[in-house]
Formats: sequence, C-alpha cells, structure tokens
Amino acid sequence: MPRTDHLGLDLLVTLDREAARPLRAQLEDQLRDGIRRGRLHAGTALPSSRALAAELGVSRGVVVEAYGQLVAEGFLVATPGGTTRVASVALHEPPEAPPERTPPPVRFDLRVEAADLSAFPRREWLAVLRDVLRDAPHTAFGYGDQAGAAALRGALSAYLGRARGVVAAPRSVVVTTGITQAVAVLGRALRRAGVTRIAVEDPGFPVHRMVLRDEGLELVPLPVDGDRLRVDALDAGDAGAVLVTPAHQFPLGMALAPERRAALVAWAQARGAFVLEDDYDGEYRFDREPVGALQALAPAHVAYLGSASKTLAPALRLGWAVVPDALLEAAERHKMLSDSGSPMLDQLALAAFVERGELDRHLRRMRQRYRRRRDVLVAALARELPLLQPEGIPAGLHLAARLPADLRLAPLLECAWADGVGLYGFPHGGVERVLLGYANLPEPSVAPAVRALARAAERAVPG
Amino acid sequence: MPRTDHLGLDLLVTLDREAARPLRAQLEDQLRDGIRRGRLHAGTALPSSRALAAELGVSRGVVVEAYGQLVAEGFLVATPGGTTRVASVALHEPPEAPPERTPPPVRFDLRVEAADLSAFPRREWLAVLRDVLRDAPHTAFGYGDQAGAAALRGALSAYLGRARGVVAAPRSVVVTTGITQAVAVLGRALRRAGVTRIAVEDPGFPVHRMVLRDEGLELVPLPVDGDRLRVDALDAGDAGAVLVTPAHQFPLGMALAPERRAALVAWAQARGAFVLEDDYDGEYRFDREPVGALQALAPAHVAYLGSASKTLAPALRLGWAVVPDALLEAAERHKMLSDSGSPMLDQLALAAFVERGELDRHLRRMRQRYRRRRDVLVAALARELPLLQPEGIPAGLHLAARLPADLRLAPLLECAWADGVGLYGFPHGGVERVLLGYANLPEPSVAPAVRALARAAERAVPG
Repeated sequence: MPRTDHLGLDLLVTLDREAARPLRAQLEDQLRDGIRRGRLHAGTALPSSRALAAELGVSRGVVVEAYGQLVAEGFLVATPGGTTRVASVALHEPPEAPPERTPPPVRFDLRVEAADLSAFPRREWLAVLRDVLRDAPHTAFGYGDQAGAAALRGALSAYLGRARGVVAAPRSVVVTTGITQAVAVLGRALRRAGVTRIAVEDPGFPVHRMVLRDEGLELVPLPVDGDRLRVDALDAGDAGAVLVTPAHQFPLGMALAPERRAALVAWAQARGAFVLEDDYDGEYRFDREPVGALQALAPAHVAYLGSASKTLAPALRLGWAVVPDALLEAAERHKMLSDSGSPMLDQLALAAFVERGELDRHLRRMRQRYRRRRDVLVAALARELPLLQPEGIPAGLHLAARLPADLRLAPLLECAWADGVGLYGFPHGGVERVLLGYANLPEPSVAPAVRALARAAERAVPG
Repeated sequence: MPRTDHLGLDLLVTLDREAARPLRAQLEDQLRDGIRRGRLHAGTALPSSRALAAELGVSRGVVVEAYGQLVAEGFLVATPGGTTRVASVALHEPPEAPPERTPPPVRFDLRVEAADLSAFPRREWLAVLRDVLRDAPHTAFGYGDQAGAAALRGALSAYLGRARGVVAAPRSVVVTTGITQAVAVLGRALRRAGVTRIAVEDPGFPVHRMVLRDEGLELVPLPVDGDRLRVDALDAGDAGAVLVTPAHQFPLGMALAPERRAALVAWAQARGAFVLEDDYDGEYRFDREPVGALQALAPAHVAYLGSASKTLAPALRLGWAVVPDALLEAAERHKMLSDSGSPMLDQLALAAFVERGELDRHLRRMRQRYRRRRDVLVAALARELPLLQPEGIPAGLHLAARLPADLRLAPLLECAWADGVGLYGFPHGGVERVLLGYANLPEPSVAPAVRALARAAERAVPG
C-alpha cells in the first residue's frame, strides 16, 4: 500500500486580497473553474483544510466553507478517510490514462524485439542500484559528462575489448540510450563531416532508415545476397558511409563473409569513408566462437554500436557507440544537444553490473537458454512446417524463414495473428519471409507455437 | 566489496582447427595481439584456465601453457588470488578513464545549474525503485509506449494540473529527458508544421538556442525590458513560435507581467502560432502563491515544458512536455526517433514518487531551505557588497545582480574563480550582471561566499 499524505499537497490557488469578492468565494471560483476545465482531475486529493488555510494565510473556516459548498454542488466529495477529492463531474470528461501502445495480446510471441523480458535480473539490478544510491558522491546527481559517466565508459571499453574484440579507449565511448540514438547521433556527425549519402543494407532495419533520413542523409540501398553484401555497390552509390550488421545481418540472419569484411574496410580506408557497425545481437553465437567486431580492423573508420536491449532489457535505454576520432567531437555535441546526457544513476548501475561480472554471468545463462529454444524451434519447423525454410547462421534471437511461392505473407500473418501467434515478416527480391523470434517464447511453447503457425499456413493457402 | 567471479567471463578467441599452427600457439598469438593492440586492457581479468578450456573445447593444459608463456613474456600477470590478468604493458599505453568534465573545484558554488545535489532523497527514491522492480510486470522491461509510460503521463497530468495550473490530458504529455530534449522535439515538430522562425528571449538560455538552430529554425531575438517582454516585436520578426520563461525569466529573474501574458497568448491565437513555455523552476516562488502556467490560457497554442532537474536532480534525466494537439503526433515521432523512449523503470519510479506525494513533501522541505538561503544571500549582499544590485522576483534557485559601471564582469569572474568562488555572469544591453545560484550553497556558506566575492570585486576594480 503506497504511503499517501494529503496534508502537504501543492494546490495552485491565488487569492486577491484587494478584490471586493470575499476570499471564500474566490477560492470556490478557482476550484470550480479548475474542475470544470479539467485542470483538476477526477479523484485528485486536495490538501486538508488546515494545510491549505496555512498555505494561503486565511482562517481554516474559509477553506472548510469553500470545500463544503463545492461538495454540496457535487464538484468535490468527502471520502471516509477525511480526504476531500475531486468528484467525477460530467461537465468535463475525466481524462483517462492513454492505453499503452503494446501490440494486441498474443498466445505465442514470435516477435523480434528484445531480450527475454521475463528473465531480467531484477534482484541483481536492484543490488547495484542500491549500492549506487548509497555510495555515489553528491556530484553524481548533477549533469556530469554528457558523453557518459567515466565509470561506465571505462567499464564498457574494457568489456567490449574482451568480449567483442573492439579496440576502444574510454574517451572514444559515447553512452547513448540505445542503437537508434547512436545512429541519430552518428548520422548528424556524418553530416557535419560533409557526408551526404549513406548506404544501408537492403533489406535492413526500417527505423534506422527513418532516423538517417530525418538527419538529412540520402540513403543508398546496398543489396545483400546471401552472405555476399555487395561491397562493389558502395562505389557505384557514391556513399560516404555505410550502416551494416556484419555479425548477424538484420533481418536475413547470415554473417558477413570474411573476404567481404576485408573489402568493406578497404573501401572505407581508400575512400576516407565511415562504417557504422550495428552489433545489435553480437553476444549470441551458438555454433562456434563469435566473430569479433569489424571495428578492430580499422578503428579510425568504423564506429561500433551496441546496447543492453538484447542482453538485459530495452526498458533500461542504455547503449553505446565507440566513435572514430574524426566523428567524436560532433557525436558528443549532438548527444549533449539531444538529451543533455543519459541518466547518471542508471549508467553507474550498469558500470557496476559489468565490473562485477554480472553481465557475463547473465549472458552465459541466457545464451544456453536461447540456444536450446532455437534448436527446439528448428526441429519443430522441420517436423511440423517443413515448407518454411530456415535461413541464416545459428546466432542471435531470431531466424528468418523463407515462404514457398504458393504461401503468401499477408494472409499468413493475418491468419496467425487471428489465432494469437504474433510475428512479423517481409518481402525481399520476390521472396517473402517470416521472422521467428524466440527470446520471448518459452521452450515448452515452441512446438505448440509452430503447430499453430502450421494451421495458419494451411488456412492461408488459397483454394 | 563487489562480488567478482572470473570463472565465467567472456573472452573472444577463435581457434582454427584446420590450421597447421598448434592451438596453444594460436591462443597465445591472439592474446598477445589483443594486449599489444589495446583491445585487452591492462588489469582485465581473464577466465580461469578450466573455464576457457571448456569454452574453447581444448584440454586445460593448452590454456595453462599459453597463459604461462605470456606471463613469462610479461603480457600477463598471475595475481595472488589465482586470477590471471593483463599486465600493464609499455607497448600500448593502458587506456585511462576520461576525466569527468566537472568544472574546477570551488569552495563556494554559486553556479546556476540544478537542485541542491546533497538533498537528493536517496532513501525515498530507492524505495520506489525497489517497488517497481518487485511489482512491474515483465512487459514493463520492453520498449513500451515511446511517448512515455501511461502511469507517469497520468501522474504528471494530474500533478501539473493541481500544482502548476496546467490543463493536460495524459495523452498530451510526452515524457522527455529534460527541457532541452523537449525543446529539440518541439523544435522539430514546429519545423514539420511549417514554422521556420522562432522568437527567443534576449537575453535567454544559450543551449536552447543551439538546439533550435540545429533543428533548422531561424532565431528572432525578442527584447526583454524589465517585466515587459516586447510582445510587439513578435509580429515584426515574423515568427511562427516563441520560447519564453514566463514564471521566472532566465536569466534576468522577473515574472512576465499579467497584461504581457495576455498579449502573448492573444498573439499566438491570432496568428495560429505556438508558445513554448519553459517552466524550468516554476515550483519555487517565495513571496506569494506562484503564478499558474500560461498554458492554461490557450492549451491549443502553448506547449508547457518542465523537468525534475530543479526539483530532484538532473541525473534522473526526466522531463515532460504538455503538447498542443497540432504538434503532438510530430513530437511523439521525433521522441521515438531520437531515443526510442525514456527509461521505463525510472519513469515508473517517478510516477510512484508523485502518486505517493513524495514529490510534494520533498518540494515543501526544499522550498523552505531555498527561501532561507535566498534571504540570507540578499541580506549579505546588502551588508557586504552593496554595489551589486539584486534584481528580479523572490523565486527560483538564482538571482541576477547588476554590476556598477566601474566593475567589469571579466576581471570579477577571473578574481572570483581564482579564489574558489564559482559563478557565471553575462552582459546585456550595455549592463553586466552576475548570476548568483543558491541551490548548492549551504546556508552557513552564504555570508563567507559573499565576502569572498566582495574581495574579488575589490581586486577586480582597476587602479
């Protein structure tokens, strides 16, 4: 039961002691008007008559009378606990909390979005927050360095070097609210560096395209054929930068082939161009050791982008960019102007979480869990729905599966959602695919989900 | 003592079983190269030999030998606890954590920036965080509504109506990371609505000007004379919007006169223009009841901007905008594209903090504290430094004081900072002023701070 205390609530009332109208009437007028106009919401608790009288410098009787009059008029109600509250008055619709924009309820969640939300390490996260709130100096509650807390930049640079092969000095790390903000910040930094065109994988992540376009960059589509990102198309497109997902192409799911990695870096170096390396789920590789970051091949030309959304939770809004020197000052400036820096307490909490090895521990647990789910999913597809053809490497939190020619995406999605199977898909180059995410699909639900999807596929085939 | 556990740390190593070079040598090569290139930072703990051997699928002897070789070469050190760590190798400078960009140390802090950082309600904030981490459903760890958590939008709309007279339905509230981001988001929304010129108070807050200019808006300076913001200049400047601080002009410190408030709103309504009302410290008025938000006069034309930076702490990065319907969709879109929404757990914590009356309680405590400090400051100025002339209304967390003609700002600031008195100032219209902030100046320090400033003034006068 939350602690409430209505004695000391702020209530904005202004009395004019020079006016002819009595103070009691002025108080009534203002409360009545506030309720009528929707400024005072239905259910809002008012201060006690004693507290409000003291606040306004009037006798308590003035407030008691005004409250009584408005109760009589139906604007206020006196509740049993002695608290006076604003009534639900028909004159003005009581504003309702907006519905959360969560998608419709689903029985089986195959959407590709985030880490397993049920596995967030609540206890461990609270423990680091408690330590931060106990130990942080007062100055930690101010603005701090708007490119990120020194403790977090240090912890991330060491962690990214060890776990992802990133070559990063702490000063090169800019803390963001996630990869999307990193793309926005770097997009603007690229504009300042004179870049006007940026290549993006086709197919790719639509939100990042919107962000880059909003920053005034022209997009050059870069064809993705199997594992053979068409690096040759970069020169044809006259791009000054490229945004790629080398460890696990989104959405198709393959890794960039070694010779293509080298060609991409050689292109950037030859042209003085920049690569934005979106490593959105690089922590998860199930068949072999993960491939290290492309960034290590050319730190002066590759910006590395990561976040906690696929390892911990999107709700934290914690991400990072390791930024080439040539873009660093502009990236820091735009980070400052877009939000004055990320929340400091959360940053210090993540720094402690990484330093203590909690992130590694959590990742080890989750990798096993996701790997099992993926195996079960692939087996269930082969058994129950062999006409869907899984593609890509065993990595990340989703797989793409190709539809046969006679099964169309739109009716499949419609039938699936109607039966409580939530998933997305996309057409590309004459082929349609669904994306099957397993981060929020518990292992026992995998087979039933695939069976439900198989039934949807049967209904979706015409004839 | 933080819990550490080096058994399960991630370490990126890739062994090629087809290669002629022995696995032990491959492992050595990669670690040596990682340390040389600065990818593995000095002091980084490596996994235990047992854990790494299991991870790589090699016998433990391979790892033990490789570690031993690198210890012999000086790349690694075996620490007494049995942990193997990366040595400080002279080949590559160990990257150092960047210094926090805090200003130089000061004895007396008169800078205008934030709430009293020593008064952050750590215990109460931890309590709401604990409840959020215990009670929030799993879905709260996902992306959620990127315009803000429903619980916070509801709590803020009721609070702002009650305490600041804002007319706000929850759906009109966009949660931001502070007023700066609200200005950025609304600046872009104004651009989408076809506005190209925005008037800004002169003098005003420089960061907001940079943000608006970065969003592609042309700035029209709007002269501020005493309490008589020159509303007539709006038409002359052909502006489609204006950014103002009506409750407590920044930096001069007066309130917008009632007839000017009315004129400003009438201008916006007649022209179909928009007002951005920056209510950065509207919670603090010491001589009378605070003046309610301008927004209530014309919610379709006035966006109301506030934050927790002056009431709780900038470190939280929590702010809000109450947005007119005509700008709402564009504001939500840009908020989404700039950071995919504010951190959810912090939003839920603030919602609970407001709902439980904790914010009101904290504000009441702080108002008394700031009011006393301001009184003591004004008295000390009259006594010790009468040539500085305080201006503005008794409100907020700072006052502006006018310098006499023979005392110049630049030498005064130089002498003050050299003596550990941290403060800012600004020239305007041939007059120079200092800004005296009292939020982070404890009451017993006020008189000594003013005496130190008086000595600086003596040294700063030529002759």
